[in-house]
Amino acid sequence: MSYELYYWPGIQGRGEFVRLALEEAGAPYVDIAQRADAEDRILAFMRRKDEPHPPFAPPFLKDGARVIGQTATILAYLGARHGLAPQDPDQNFWVQQIQLTVADLVGEAHDAHHPLGAELYYEEQKPQARLRARYFREERITKYLGWLEKILARNPDGPAHLVGAALTYVDLSLFQIVEGLTYAFPERMKSVAIQTPNVMALRDNVAARPHIRAYLASGRRLPFSEQGIFRHYRELDD
Amino acid sequence: MSYELYYWPGIQGRGEFVRLALEEAGAPYVDIAQRADAEDRILAFMRRKDEPHPPFAPPFLKDGARVIGQTATILAYLGARHGLAPQDPDQNFWVQQIQLTVADLVGEAHDAHHPLGAELYYEEQKPQARLRARYFREERITKYLGWLEKILARNPDGPAHLVGAALTYVDLSLFQIVEGLTYAFPERMKSVAIQTPNVMALRDNVAARPHIRAYLASGRRLPFSEQGIFRHYRELDD
Repeated sequence: MSYELYYWPGIQGRGEFVRLALEEAGAPYVDIAQRADAEDRILAFMRRKDEPHPPFAPPFLKDGARVIGQTATILAYLGARHGLAPQDPDQNFWVQQIQLTVADLVGEAHDAHHPLGAELYYEEQKPQARLRARYFREERITKYLGWLEKILARNPDGPAHLVGAALTYVDLSLFQIVEGLTYAFPERMKSVAIQTPNVMALRDNVAARPHIRAYLASGRRLPFSEQGIFRHYRELDD
Repeated sequence: MSYELYYWPGIQGRGEFVRLALEEAGAPYVDIAQRADAEDRILAFMRRKDEPHPPFAPPFLKDGARVIGQTATILAYLGARHGLAPQDPDQNFWVQQIQLTVADLVGEAHDAHHPLGAELYYEEQKPQARLRARYFREERITKYLGWLEKILARNPDGPAHLVGAALTYVDLSLFQIVEGLTYAFPERMKSVAIQTPNVMALRDNVAARPHIRAYLASGRRLPFSEQGIFRHYRELDD
């Protein structure tokens, strides 16, 4: 039976971290975002009164009767089922910890253009976004990617993966944040990339994996845009 | 051997979610925040070049040679060891999903008074905080606590706990967010409390548990303050 991925149509967003895991795993899935009535289906599901595990927000994954929300929880669930998470419990906690830190970065990347909240347009908060984006660009990106670089350099199994000697879902998430930050902050990322060679090499290796390469070349991979989490506004870059 | 909890001194912050789990479990722990040189010890640890699992930020927990960061990961780790997490894998994912949603609420509670970022004082972003706090107060608190209320009402084992028939770490986290929101937004919470009776009853039940009651009455429980995540500024409440 196929998984069903529920996420808003038209953007990569947080759903993309789940898509990358499903694609790498070669797992059959129905992407509800591709349906013409995607929003109606999401809202109808969230209004169901008989669901014992109601998700707070998309993305959420249906696996038969199971419903799982929160990106990091979905990834932990898929990782365990498809060989994208370590068997060892300590390593598994370590993958989860890195994934949650990636999630923090994703939240900050969104807030860089929406500091006053998601209910106002970017155009209504441009001066504030400029201030917050400067801090994000100059302090936070370096701190987060520098931390990932350190983890790769200290991995006892070598810098090819964040955890252990094989691919885990958090390697895929690293790929996605590098792609997103490079789209949103191309000027800034030129200098950051020089300081984080292991991060950039892992990004390249993920992009070259057969399933991921095929996915990226397909129509299933949506482009980045100014409706998503990672947005390119020239005035927010260097 | 005792756990060591590393967190900034003087505030409850995210460390408090870990403290509540440790206290409920009756687990021996050293609270580094209580040491006079707490900040130095935290920074010294974070600068160590030989730690294979370097935490990104406090809180982090040391258990012998193990180092675990990210609040939700620490709670999953402690929960498994101290009977504060379900044995059943599906239920365990469900607890984790709820905890991550609680973490999202905590992030938004912080941003309500610091929309432009943590590197500026509240006094430097008061008008923006007013705007963001209004949205948080009027839309988000209700949405989050309403969701928790729904989960309690739908729990097949009854509304005494969020998941299953026994206490899990996310019940303790529910207690903490109700306490924090009631401190920060006392006016707003008066009406929210009426709409979320199961949430409020669980808050009361957690507060009445012997270990938690003893902890709350002890000097180990720091008061809320305007240095923490949940801050009371009258102009941000109704």
